[in-house]
Amino acid sequence: MLAEIITIGDEILIGQIVDTNSAWMAQQLNSAGIRVKQISSVSDDREHILQALAEAKKRADIILITGGLGPTKDDITKKTLATYFNVGMIENQEALANVTRIFAKYKRPLLEVNKQQALVPGNCEVINNHNGTAPGMWFNEAGKVYVSMPGVPFEMMYMMEEQVLPKLKNTFKLPFIMHKTILTVGEGESFLAERIADIEDNLPPHIKLAYLPKLGQVRLRLSGYGEQETSLANEVNYYAGLIVDRVSNVVAAEDDIPLEKAVLDKLIAQGKTLSVAESCTGGYLSHLFTQHAGSSQAFLGGAVSYANELKESILGVKNETLWQYGAVSEEMVTEMVQGALSNFKSDYAVAITGIAGPSGGTDEKPVGTVWIAVAGPDNISVKKYTFGNKRKQNIERTAITAMGLLNTLL
Amino acid sequence: MLAEIITIGDEILIGQIVDTNSAWMAQQLNSAGIRVKQISSVSDDREHILQALAEAKKRADIILITGGLGPTKDDITKKTLATYFNVGMIENQEALANVTRIFAKYKRPLLEVNKQQALVPGNCEVINNHNGTAPGMWFNEAGKVYVSMPGVPFEMMYMMEEQVLPKLKNTFKLPFIMHKTILTVGEGESFLAERIADIEDNLPPHIKLAYLPKLGQVRLRLSGYGEQETSLANEVNYYAGLIVDRVSNVVAAEDDIPLEKAVLDKLIAQGKTLSVAESCTGGYLSHLFTQHAGSSQAFLGGAVSYANELKESILGVKNETLWQYGAVSEEMVTEMVQGALSNFKSDYAVAITGIAGPSGGTDEKPVGTVWIAVAGPDNISVKKYTFGNKRKQNIERTAITAMGLLNTLL
Repeated sequence: MLAEIITIGDEILIGQIVDTNSAWMAQQLNSAGIRVKQISSVSDDREHILQALAEAKKRADIILITGGLGPTKDDITKKTLATYFNVGMIENQEALANVTRIFAKYKRPLLEVNKQQALVPGNCEVINNHNGTAPGMWFNEAGKVYVSMPGVPFEMMYMMEEQVLPKLKNTFKLPFIMHKTILTVGEGESFLAERIADIEDNLPPHIKLAYLPKLGQVRLRLSGYGEQETSLANEVNYYAGLIVDRVSNVVAAEDDIPLEKAVLDKLIAQGKTLSVAESCTGGYLSHLFTQHAGSSQAFLGGAVSYANELKESILGVKNETLWQYGAVSEEMVTEMVQGALSNFKSDYAVAITGIAGPSGGTDEKPVGTVWIAVAGPDNISVKKYTFGNKRKQNIERTAITAMGLLNTLL
Repeated sequence: MLAEIITIGDEILIGQIVDTNSAWMAQQLNSAGIRVKQISSVSDDREHILQALAEAKKRADIILITGGLGPTKDDITKKTLATYFNVGMIENQEALANVTRIFAKYKRPLLEVNKQQALVPGNCEVINNHNGTAPGMWFNEAGKVYVSMPGVPFEMMYMMEEQVLPKLKNTFKLPFIMHKTILTVGEGESFLAERIADIEDNLPPHIKLAYLPKLGQVRLRLSGYGEQETSLANEVNYYAGLIVDRVSNVVAAEDDIPLEKAVLDKLIAQGKTLSVAESCTGGYLSHLFTQHAGSSQAFLGGAVSYANELKESILGVKNETLWQYGAVSEEMVTEMVQGALSNFKSDYAVAITGIAGPSGGTDEKPVGTVWIAVAGPDNISVKKYTFGNKRKQNIERTAITAMGLLNTLL
């Protein structure tokens, strides 16, 4: 079963907002066994909307439309749908009662323009909007279902969850879709592909493998399509197991979670704590951990020792080490990680020092030179990396790499 | 001039990632005077991509394509473009040299599958990818420009900024557009609008004002459209000056820069230094500062004192304060900011302690309770805030608010 999502309105096309609605809808549809064939953002323009509807109809059975339902003049979705279906507009009593109720609740006068929100194309079934004034609309024409919903995220989300998805499940016989994601860190897409080439080649046609790379990490996602939930799950898990066994040295999680969450989960499961000493990543690694609820169970905190003085005062690195080897050196990062372990009293520690750039590099230590140390109760690993010359990427890549090293140590 | 954006790949269609690339591209294109007619996300499917290209060509002059350029089997953009243009594939020497250079740099063997990244459709002009192995491709066919770029955000962004946008500006005669942004912090959109209503009403029709609100900040963006650069610039600057004078108490920058950059610039201009003591923001504030090149001129670093023990050991807060008033209290944040000033020896310091959530709240101190202190050589300001119950928003809002306070102090 195929669906398409059409988003109407200029906010997305001028880049003022990011289209988070479509991603959320796509997730919901996929979980319900409905594949999304295309997502289109089109302008508040009658001809353009008509064209988008006609194109979507050729490819999909279900067409979900958001946006363009407000009371202002530039919101033209309803009239365009009436034109598309070649029907007139009628006043819907349920929708009128809803608008009246909301205006009474907020003690606002009901203007003519608000009453018009109850006007809908004659061939639609109204989907009551419990969280706003614009009604949703369900059309069933020539075997295709069209649903028009408001663009306000929470209004759309409640309407989808409470009414549209259950109604779609009743209307269509849906296949079962199962995704399984394996998070790897520290090996490139093409090397992974080579290591698991035979497994990939032998996948049955209804199971697909996708490589989703992102700064030092690659997500391997298996997607299975079938009729029978249990057997499909078993099959997808079987192939996931083959892949995990093959590349186990770089697997961080067998789930679709961020790397730092995988590391935190391991620490929490082992009842261990972590502290950090960050120089060139400047708090980014700490931020990655602490954005997750519950991180305080394992993450104690640490130092952002940007200035050399702070490396000495907070981490207790020796002044001689600084002037003898420099701030970006194996000796320095080793003292930093030891300083974090002893001063912050954590089981594990990560220390990072490097030159994020764009300036500050030398011939011997160019921009992108980074030393990372990870240490546990009885082991320490210190490595040097040479990344590129882009500051933001150096910061991100360093944090990801440090977490990869920590993941291996755990 | 009209453009369309086509995003290729299943990640967006299954809702695994949100399409931030398209929003960013749309912004850039709009700033360059190019309107975006449609944004489409399509699957890794040959027929579907061909159809999307054919449809886009009917509506737009510029077609920007991202994604589907990796070395693995599911990445089929290049071959499909060759089919679309009815040309063969050729090996591009520049692209091959780039792949070879990158693999040599990371000391990795160059596999056959990697070499294939240098294969491109015969009619394209290669856009060198300085940040990755997949080359960009520029096609100029029958008066329409097609550009294919990698889907990895930073590779695409650098390619757009450094090469694609300048090339588009050279290829097409674009109108002159001038944007001038004023960054304000600490006052809501509707209040700002009321204060500058008369200025807005008197803007000439070719100058538009947009309000771009984002977590405690509002950007006021004046956009002027014209033929003559100097007179347009003078005119836009004149109206910007009127607005800045009117709301000067909340202006952080007269430029489209992030708030933390505005604060850093002020510190650097005054030759002053800053340190931080972060609890509930967990390194996020430090990260905001240190992501900017040159931040080390003013930012010394600080403590991420997530655990209470670290508040004592790094910042020197008193144990009595902790048990008498609690970690989230006026007394605590005051000792934290004083500890940062004296231990880290900076001119200014920011301290933050609060309950980011979702758990950890009490009746007296619910989730979202945050204390912020900012201190300078001879002044200190301590404030309590009650934000919402969403962890990520609380972290962001706290950081923004702290910078707003610091901005006022400076």
